Amino acid sequence: MGNSYGTLFRITTFGESHGPAIGVVIDGCPAGLEIDETFIQRELDRRKPGQSKITTQRKEDDKFKILSGTFEGKSTGTPIAIVIENQDQRSKDYSHIAETFRPSHADYTYEAKYGNRDYRGGGRSSARETAARVAAGAIAKMLLNQQGVSIDGFVSQVGEIQAPPYSKMDLSKKEDNIVRCPDPETAEKMITLIDQVRHDRDTIGGIVTCVIRNVPVGLGEPVFDKLHAELAKAMMSINAVKGFEYGSGFEGVKLKGSQHNDEFYNENGRIRTKTNFSGGIQGGISNGEDIYFNVAFKPVATIMQDQPSVTKGGEETVVTGKGRHDPCVVPRAVPIVEAMAALVLADFLLLSKTSKLPQDTSVNAK
Amino acid sequence: MGNSYGTLFRITTFGESHGPAIGVVIDGCPAGLEIDETFIQRELDRRKPGQSKITTQRKEDDKFKILSGTFEGKSTGTPIAIVIENQDQRSKDYSHIAETFRPSHADYTYEAKYGNRDYRGGGRSSARETAARVAAGAIAKMLLNQQGVSIDGFVSQVGEIQAPPYSKMDLSKKEDNIVRCPDPETAEKMITLIDQVRHDRDTIGGIVTCVIRNVPVGLGEPVFDKLHAELAKAMMSINAVKGFEYGSGFEGVKLKGSQHNDEFYNENGRIRTKTNFSGGIQGGISNGEDIYFNVAFKPVATIMQDQPSVTKGGEETVVTGKGRHDPCVVPRAVPIVEAMAALVLADFLLLSKTSKLPQDTSVNAK
Amino acid sequence: MGNSYGTLFRITTFGESHGPAIGVVIDGCPAGLEIDETFIQRELDRRKPGQSKITTQRKEDDKFKILSGTFEGKSTGTPIAIVIENQDQRSKDYSHIAETFRPSHADYTYEAKYGNRDYRGGGRSSARETAARVAAGAIAKMLLNQQGVSIDGFVSQVGEIQAPPYSKMDLSKKEDNIVRCPDPETAEKMITLIDQVRHDRDTIGGIVTCVIRNVPVGLGEPVFDKLHAELAKAMMSINAVKGFEYGSGFEGVKLKGSQHNDEFYNENGRIRTKTNFSGGIQGGISNGEDIYFNVAFKPVATIMQDQPSVTKGGEETVVTGKGRHDPCVVPRAVPIVEAMAALVLADFLLLSKTSKLPQDTSVNAK
Amino acid sequence: MGNSYGTLFRITTFGESHGPAIGVVIDGCPAGLEIDETFIQRELDRRKPGQSKITTQRKEDDKFKILSGTFEGKSTGTPIAIVIENQDQRSKDYSHIAETFRPSHADYTYEAKYGNRDYRGGGRSSARETAARVAAGAIAKMLLNQQGVSIDGFVSQVGEIQAPPYSKMDLSKKEDNIVRCPDPETAEKMITLIDQVRHDRDTIGGIVTCVIRNVPVGLGEPVFDKLHAELAKAMMSINAVKGFEYGSGFEGVKLKGSQHNDEFYNENGRIRTKTNFSGGIQGGISNGEDIYFNVAFKPVATIMQDQPSVTKGGEETVVTGKGRHDPCVVPRAVPIVEAMAALVLADFLLLSKTSKLPQDTSVNAK
Repeated sequence: MGNSYGTLFRITTFGESHGPAIGVVIDGCPAGLEIDETFIQRELDRRKPGQSKITTQRKEDDKFKILSGTFEGKSTGTPIAIVIENQDQRSKDYSHIAETFRPSHADYTYEAKYGNRDYRGGGRSSARETAARVAAGAIAKMLLNQQGVSIDGFVSQVGEIQAPPYSKMDLSKKEDNIVRCPDPETAEKMITLIDQVRHDRDTIGGIVTCVIRNVPVGLGEPVFDKLHAELAKAMMSINAVKGFEYGSGFEGVKLKGSQHNDEFYNENGRIRTKTNFSGGIQGGISNGEDIYFNVAFKPVATIMQDQPSVTKGGEETVVTGKGRHDPCVVPRAVPIVEAMAALVLADFLLLSKTSKLPQDTSVNAK
Repeated sequence: MGNSYGTLFRITTFGESHGPAIGVVIDGCPAGLEIDETFIQRELDRRKPGQSKITTQRKEDDKFKILSGTFEGKSTGTPIAIVIENQDQRSKDYSHIAETFRPSHADYTYEAKYGNRDYRGGGRSSARETAARVAAGAIAKMLLNQQGVSIDGFVSQVGEIQAPPYSKMDLSKKEDNIVRCPDPETAEKMITLIDQVRHDRDTIGGIVTCVIRNVPVGLGEPVFDKLHAELAKAMMSINAVKGFEYGSGFEGVKLKGSQHNDEFYNENGRIRTKTNFSGGIQGGISNGEDIYFNVAFKPVATIMQDQPSVTKGGEETVVTGKGRHDPCVVPRAVPIVEAMAALVLADFLLLSKTSKLPQDTSVNAK
Repeated sequence: MGNSYGTLFRITTFGESHGPAIGVVIDGCPAGLEIDETFIQRELDRRKPGQSKITTQRKEDDKFKILSGTFEGKSTGTPIAIVIENQDQRSKDYSHIAETFRPSHADYTYEAKYGNRDYRGGGRSSARETAARVAAGAIAKMLLNQQGVSIDGFVSQVGEIQAPPYSKMDLSKKEDNIVRCPDPETAEKMITLIDQVRHDRDTIGGIVTCVIRNVPVGLGEPVFDKLHAELAKAMMSINAVKGFEYGSGFEGVKLKGSQHNDEFYNENGRIRTKTNFSGGIQGGISNGEDIYFNVAFKPVATIMQDQPSVTKGGEETVVTGKGRHDPCVVPRAVPIVEAMAALVLADFLLLSKTSKLPQDTSVNAK
Repeated sequence: MGNSYGTLFRITTFGESHGPAIGVVIDGCPAGLEIDETFIQRELDRRKPGQSKITTQRKEDDKFKILSGTFEGKSTGTPIAIVIENQDQRSKDYSHIAETFRPSHADYTYEAKYGNRDYRGGGRSSARETAARVAAGAIAKMLLNQQGVSIDGFVSQVGEIQAPPYSKMDLSKKEDNIVRCPDPETAEKMITLIDQVRHDRDTIGGIVTCVIRNVPVGLGEPVFDKLHAELAKAMMSINAVKGFEYGSGFEGVKLKGSQHNDEFYNENGRIRTKTNFSGGIQGGISNGEDIYFNVAFKPVATIMQDQPSVTKGGEETVVTGKGRHDPCVVPRAVPIVEAMAALVLADFLLLSKTSKLPQDTSVNAK
């Protein structure tokens, strides 16, 4: 009921921010995949709190343990269970949340839907859950790497500060700075802004852009499970996301068909398009061009300021942010966006194995 | 494999644009729902081609027939199958599509994925498939109407012409003009623009906005099946959609948390928010405020102009749009957006029946 | 909600016995499969009423129509919708069912579950629904035929009359007589018994045995979706089925491990077992030996005799069977059992494509 | 991909017999359920090895830990993750399994399907996995207990020794002896037989019967997800199961309709049946009478005798059972059968909440 994702490569996450542990079970990973545990940890480290001055200073080591599904370094085809223990369980003082609904958090809706809730640190609605996604996404990435697929997420906007278009940047530089923007100059401005916002005890939103290259032609399952529809759902399921667009996106609505259409041409026997307003997807199916999309994140709801609110009983009260929170979520959101993209693609890659009977096809055969 | 949508209220659509018929099977509609066939037809008529001078002049009556699942005017709890026969099957001349890939259509990707395809009129990738969604959506709306839920889609942008914010308009006027914009002045401009674009043998994009009112608190299934994540997938699965945003959306990334947070207050015992940047959804669960979102549609790919392309064999060729096509898709997309929204909500409404054990809850109790 | 079956090769059936039509949508059939419509009709004819003196004399032509999913004789990868119109809709006199619950039918439970029901001819609970399964199963068989898989169902028991073990019979003779038992002598006795039972205005039960040969090694998805677990569900979902056993079955409980274990040996480089108590499945996965199982059918509930019962209101009444019914269901059940077996295997065949990464494996390599 | 079960009350199990741990994630348990951890442990203890002289002498404490989904003693509506660490991981000597296929085990089929496998103790194919099912089933039982549903499994046959029909026994005595047969005299004989078999270094099969009382009318989802079809799948998914029958079962095939039909009558306003050949299920939906069914278990494959077999490379070899194994699986299988029954019923109970709109219904209302 909402805690699983995927059809063939299927994950189920569990865990609350202040319970004993969070984790994920991956069912459907093909047997024989080499599991690089160092890589999984590296991905978790990209997401973990306390990694730089512009993230929350909360401390979680985010060390993971694989409980099942691998043997002698390889996947066995059985479920891979990964558990990450919660360390920073300072459960002392949550009385301000237990009885009160924090503005623009999930406190009220969880209480209304479920009747009771683990209010400590947001419980299940905490973004801590996304660590489990990143661990699973790391394994999906290993599967995709075998096909040569690369996934590059980066921060393209913080507040009003925008990075250049992705084609004008060297994406390999995205990890060179703490804000994860490949353009050094823009990165500098973003860091300064986030620092200022934090100093003001406030928060700010931003955009993560993701570029996926070398995707095999034919991924995506029309009509409802179009590749971009699943990417949209996957991204919108990340905490704090408010919007998704791919290819020409919202700007594309202003264009005419004569401007927007991507002409086909033959590049040494491979069918390609001259422009890529389609964002690498046509009719819900990958066409082999770059897939790129934007994910909009709202400002973090927890601010270090007094805010009017109400209690469970409906009485007026004032809530003040406590603890250590991110002034801007996008730097740490980059690996989460990549992980969800990897999970979507890995699933479609497996699904594509049965689209047609083995046969000679004239497409792309010169 | 991509042709079903929903968990408990689940639809499966079938059919190609130039086959004998299209249709839908609805499984999971509760028994005892009064089925108003006149309403279903009215919804189909809002989507059907040839309805005004700014839509395609193709003719399809879109008369439907219910094959199962109802008895004496009510649903029986068994699958409701609805079939719509294709009338305008001028299959004569599709040679230009059979061997050639139309730019920014799904011809190439379907060919690559499936090896063979029904190329007539786009086959399965044709937006004709959405008629089946509208029929199913009409039944979902009947279920939601019982709860008092209202769903209002309308055209909020065509090219660069934008309507005022929804709160400034009288949404009951959305069907008063052929472009389906509730603001008469904006509507006039939009119609003129579309007419001009059609005259230029070109097409243009636009935005459909949708507002949903009186949604019960508690719909949505965290963490992956958040209400807005499913809405995003549902909308992105509609032909020609490039983007989705809800609540503050992409503009929200520029705001600070102190500006963006929605303060709670007690309105006569009902917990409400003063502002609604959250778009009626918090933590993936409806909070009872208006749900509103934008859906971006690209310009229609078929234009009445010569465009370079390639054949299946990879040879250079020129494609020219034939037939009768929409210069702008958004006026006819309004009922499709509404239908998909209704399907998402009906499903979550049923799912919410098992969220908690029956009990006294103090939330919202004065 | 109960009307779909399968994961990748997935069917959804619809229709009531006395509505306009019944049908099925098949989603996930790979593109490129040659669709032999004559074969589909032949399969439907094996199931249709009125085919011999020992079946119901009701008349249904069971002519089908494909509405979508095929083009130029091949599947296209899009949903295949098949519709069979109901001809024998003598809806005149169902008052005896409308208000009364027939013993050992689904009248009472449908009324209790759904609140209202299409009572004509049993509505959705009628075995007429299985015609849709047979049509879908025919397509699954075409897919399996490409792999060399053969599926042979036959009648192995009627009342107390039992056929010899399958290995002692020539299964190619199963269609040589109207009861579908490959042993001519046993068939004769069975026919005589059914004839007698019909003459007595009564009904009798029986067993259908099914043997599947040349199944590729590796089909089945442990731990819950074991091959035999899915076969069991598929068979038990057929009307009137009360039991399922495979391999040694219920008799196997009496054996010792030393008698029951199937020893492996090497037959020209292929690993085989000397005995086959395992029924071709070990750990839920096919091992390449014959899969064989028994399906127990109860006597048909409609008998031409007075039976005490109650009305909807709970008043005592007497029900008498009307119309034309089967004295024994198993001869017509044979193609249904085969169809469900084919659907299960086709689905697992597709699922098996992603069990492991492509690799050299030493198993079965001489 | 095979490791999840259920639609709304959905479990996913993971873990190998000799990995660090096994476990289960339960998604969809309604919030507000009181979780009795003592009861969970008691259920696990009924299944655990070493509990009596007629089970394996292997030692596993089977102490569980809840990682998520509960708060202050109640379920929160979020996933409940339960982990059981493996203690008895004597991984020393598995060379005899690593390269060799044990007869009637899953060694060969896992190797063929997945290419590599965790061979220690059978890995994922070990019945150790069922501990996770029992833990999850305990929670399902708590949910069902609220409805007054009771589930009683017991051993009804070992080898050729049969217990009396369930209606002739006092099921509350089923836990009074180590073989879990409610009839003391039969129990004594069964224990003696198992003891003898063990002494002979052999194994023997048996039958577990399960009786479910006070099931609400209306559970089950026709046509494919009939209540008995899901029960069949659930039972057949348990290790070593070869057959399933409910109600009259295989014996019912010998009966005539006039003998087999269950007449309805009115018992103080409640509609009941005089006999119960239907086994409490009609048309796939519970009718309120006792549900009862038999589950056939083959003799355990591991015997302490030399058996011919082949190696991975196809060479002839001899396998001898090592370690400590059950001479007969049924005493420990009783809680597993109950757990799977509980999981099926809990799921259908939740599903039934949306079968019809709230309404007055005349059924059963006198």
